[in-house]
Amino acid sequence: MKKDEKIYLYGKHALREALLGVPGAIQKVFLDQNAQRDSEITKALSAAGIVPSAMKGDDSKRKVGDDAVHQGVIAVLNPSKLYRTLESVLETIDMSKSPCLVLLDELHDPHNVGAIIRSAAAFGASAVLLPEHNQAPVTGTVIKTSAGMALKIPVVQIGNVNQTMRTLKDKGFWSYGLVMGGTSSLPKTKFDTATLIVVGNESTGIRQKTLELCDITLSIPMDPTCESLNASVAASVVLYEWSRENM
Amino acid sequence: MKKDEKIYLYGKHALREALLGVPGAIQKVFLDQNAQRDSEITKALSAAGIVPSAMKGDDSKRKVGDDAVHQGVIAVLNPSKLYRTLESVLETIDMSKSPCLVLLDELHDPHNVGAIIRSAAAFGASAVLLPEHNQAPVTGTVIKTSAGMALKIPVVQIGNVNQTMRTLKDKGFWSYGLVMGGTSSLPKTKFDTATLIVVGNESTGIRQKTLELCDITLSIPMDPTCESLNASVAASVVLYEWSRENM
Repeated sequence: MKKDEKIYLYGKHALREALLGVPGAIQKVFLDQNAQRDSEITKALSAAGIVPSAMKGDDSKRKVGDDAVHQGVIAVLNPSKLYRTLESVLETIDMSKSPCLVLLDELHDPHNVGAIIRSAAAFGASAVLLPEHNQAPVTGTVIKTSAGMALKIPVVQIGNVNQTMRTLKDKGFWSYGLVMGGTSSLPKTKFDTATLIVVGNESTGIRQKTLELCDITLSIPMDPTCESLNASVAASVVLYEWSRENM
Repeated sequence: MKKDEKIYLYGKHALREALLGVPGAIQKVFLDQNAQRDSEITKALSAAGIVPSAMKGDDSKRKVGDDAVHQGVIAVLNPSKLYRTLESVLETIDMSKSPCLVLLDELHDPHNVGAIIRSAAAFGASAVLLPEHNQAPVTGTVIKTSAGMALKIPVVQIGNVNQTMRTLKDKGFWSYGLVMGGTSSLPKTKFDTATLIVVGNESTGIRQKTLELCDITLSIPMDPTCESLNASVAASVVLYEWSRENM
């Protein structure tokens, strides 16, 4: 798990998303001579109180590689400032509207994390919760795979999974653990309260202690000769079913 | 698009799946001294009429890389023999049971292709159809991402997408093209006839001529601020909904 490494975003679109979603995480912005003349960019930066630096000859190659299409724009993010707090998320949630949170329990593949964040945003979840340890954090790869949604939907870094689940239970959330052979079949599940979807590690699934805290174990019906789905597909199918009931 | 490159599978589990699913595609099997003493393996190979070769010192490193856990077993597949014919698939399909086929229209990312094949198998589709040109073919990466399902569920290589769609229409299939802003909303769609799900390219979607051949354009409802889902997630959600109606 790479942690606290700087995140490089490149391109005008990515900068725009970062300015909109996580302005406080932008540490530095490099612009080449062309981009310095782009008034849309310079105005937006100035409104956010960010003074851009000039991109030097080798800066772009060194930071984003030879092949990246950066349009003369590179933004450097501080990963630790990307995250929201659980408190701030809970304050904005309307509990009467059966909101949905997604908790990743030690997923290791950044592509899965990015795809789940993208689906969570698409299907209307309120936030994605990532444990601080043993979990792929938000990186450049995650942001890219999420199609930028990791900068849009709140992503919360939590200390302890089980403690967070207890906190959410006290707030009125029901937690649904996605497992093989769960007691509730997804198509028959009514998500009619505040919902926490818990997704386990790609190989080992949800940890035992965490599973014991789930109110409901949930399964996706599938052909008996297939062992499982890709973790991001499974999480996305649950999010689809939740949105089918609630949106 | 890499084509006709040999595919290397490693490990006992992968060999078992290849022997079960695509024995005719196995070109060569290398066993190290330990694996040569594994009677389950040698019996299965002998039943399939395959004479294994001895794995030499550097064979494994050269073929599968330093890190691969090959358990002393490497199988070499001929990609062109992995595919079934559309005729053979149609012969085995029960048209009265609303079967489902998936057609990929020029997808380029092997991870998407593998994940879709895995989901197609899990949700009970009868086959996945891949165009011969401008489409990521079955490779080692696809097989791995599919969790071996690319060796289990029939994968058909087709020459011409539009011609294949006309053939299937004549056989009684309805084709559903997955697009933004389609006329039919996925949760409200009844897949009550033989179904062809058409999935378009990751960036450009389904090609115009192909789209015109679709009987129904299908959309997944999502948050208006999100542009789209990952291609394999979108295809998998449609497959889930199909299985929800039909399994």
